[in-house]
Amino acid sequence: MDLYTYWRSTAAYRVRIAFNLKNLPYQSSPLHLVRDGGQQLGEAYQQINPQKLVPALRVEKGEILTQSLAIIEYLEEQYPDPALLPATTIERAHVRALAQNIACDIHPLNNLRVLKYLTGPCGLSKEQQTQWYRHWIDEGFVALEATLSQNSSAGDFCHGDNPGLADCCLVPQIYNARRFSIPLENYPTLCRIEKNCLALTAFDKARPEKQPDAETAS
Amino acid sequence: MDLYTYWRSTAAYRVRIAFNLKNLPYQSSPLHLVRDGGQQLGEAYQQINPQKLVPALRVEKGEILTQSLAIIEYLEEQYPDPALLPATTIERAHVRALAQNIACDIHPLNNLRVLKYLTGPCGLSKEQQTQWYRHWIDEGFVALEATLSQNSSAGDFCHGDNPGLADCCLVPQIYNARRFSIPLENYPTLCRIEKNCLALTAFDKARPEKQPDAETAS
Repeated sequence: MDLYTYWRSTAAYRVRIAFNLKNLPYQSSPLHLVRDGGQQLGEAYQQINPQKLVPALRVEKGEILTQSLAIIEYLEEQYPDPALLPATTIERAHVRALAQNIACDIHPLNNLRVLKYLTGPCGLSKEQQTQWYRHWIDEGFVALEATLSQNSSAGDFCHGDNPGLADCCLVPQIYNARRFSIPLENYPTLCRIEKNCLALTAFDKARPEKQPDAETAS
Repeated sequence: MDLYTYWRSTAAYRVRIAFNLKNLPYQSSPLHLVRDGGQQLGEAYQQINPQKLVPALRVEKGEILTQSLAIIEYLEEQYPDPALLPATTIERAHVRALAQNIACDIHPLNNLRVLKYLTGPCGLSKEQQTQWYRHWIDEGFVALEATLSQNSSAGDFCHGDNPGLADCCLVPQIYNARRFSIPLENYPTLCRIEKNCLALTAFDKARPEKQPDAETAS
């Protein structure tokens, strides 16, 4: 399978972790989201994904899948072992909700196209852009911290003692928060889970700085 | 089951459609998102959903589920007939991606809390807020229109000739676009599917203006 990715894309990072947790091989097809005015915006990639976003996945039959959570659910259905979702319908709903807190209500507000639109057409300053970024991280992380610290089903990971779908979303989002120097001391449970995740090879191998297209400049 | 909802919330609207498509009964527990400074922001509701967003669902065992797509996937697993997702893993991935285009990449940018933040802390004018709204609708709808008009698996509905998960997301998003007077003539496929959906009782009963908490003022 062929993953259209960018080293710093947190949505692509989620999918890389899922591949690694399932011990599935994939080929990286990196796109540079800044160079050439954004390679994801070019005609060639629009034929692959009309949304002009990474990741996209070309599966073995040649079909293209888009949207990181849909791709991970595909991997879960196609390659169920090890599972990234728990066994019961209620538990699965809880884990999906944690993932969607990040994938629907934090990340889309803070991704590259939105940050560019704020300082471009909206005319905000760099400082206002950073305040915006921090506001939506805090909104989401306060709720996640409350949910995970009060929820008896959280363990070493977001759900129990095995990493899963919610962890695939949490670790990239914390990476992104650190990149923007967001203080994280109010989120001890999130940071504890992040640490447990990054101790695993599956997460470590998926880190942005370990990707073939990683750059050393910040 | 008890659905925390607001008549105009498009995320709650998705879940109402899913309940109706599955012929499942539910109780409405309306919250007013504007009155009292926003009832979803109060202490009582934060105990139910720390994210302070609707919808949330209290299921029969008393557990609370959040996030509209996680709730719909729960209903799909618990009450599989009629199905809202297709039979094959590839088709399921496509339908989930359509739903996530809306639920991750359009709606979260345009919901109430974000629109308020733009004219509040960001200091944008009402006109800039409207441009923002329209920009993200167009970004998402252009991609959806391209995908659905070129995709041979779209039929009367987003996938084939039976309504499903993607339709549960599309119809509320178009409702919201109309509310903000967004021109829709460039999206004939989306409008055709919307019309087919709204001809069904399941969608019609879920319309905002048919909810117990609907108001006549615009």
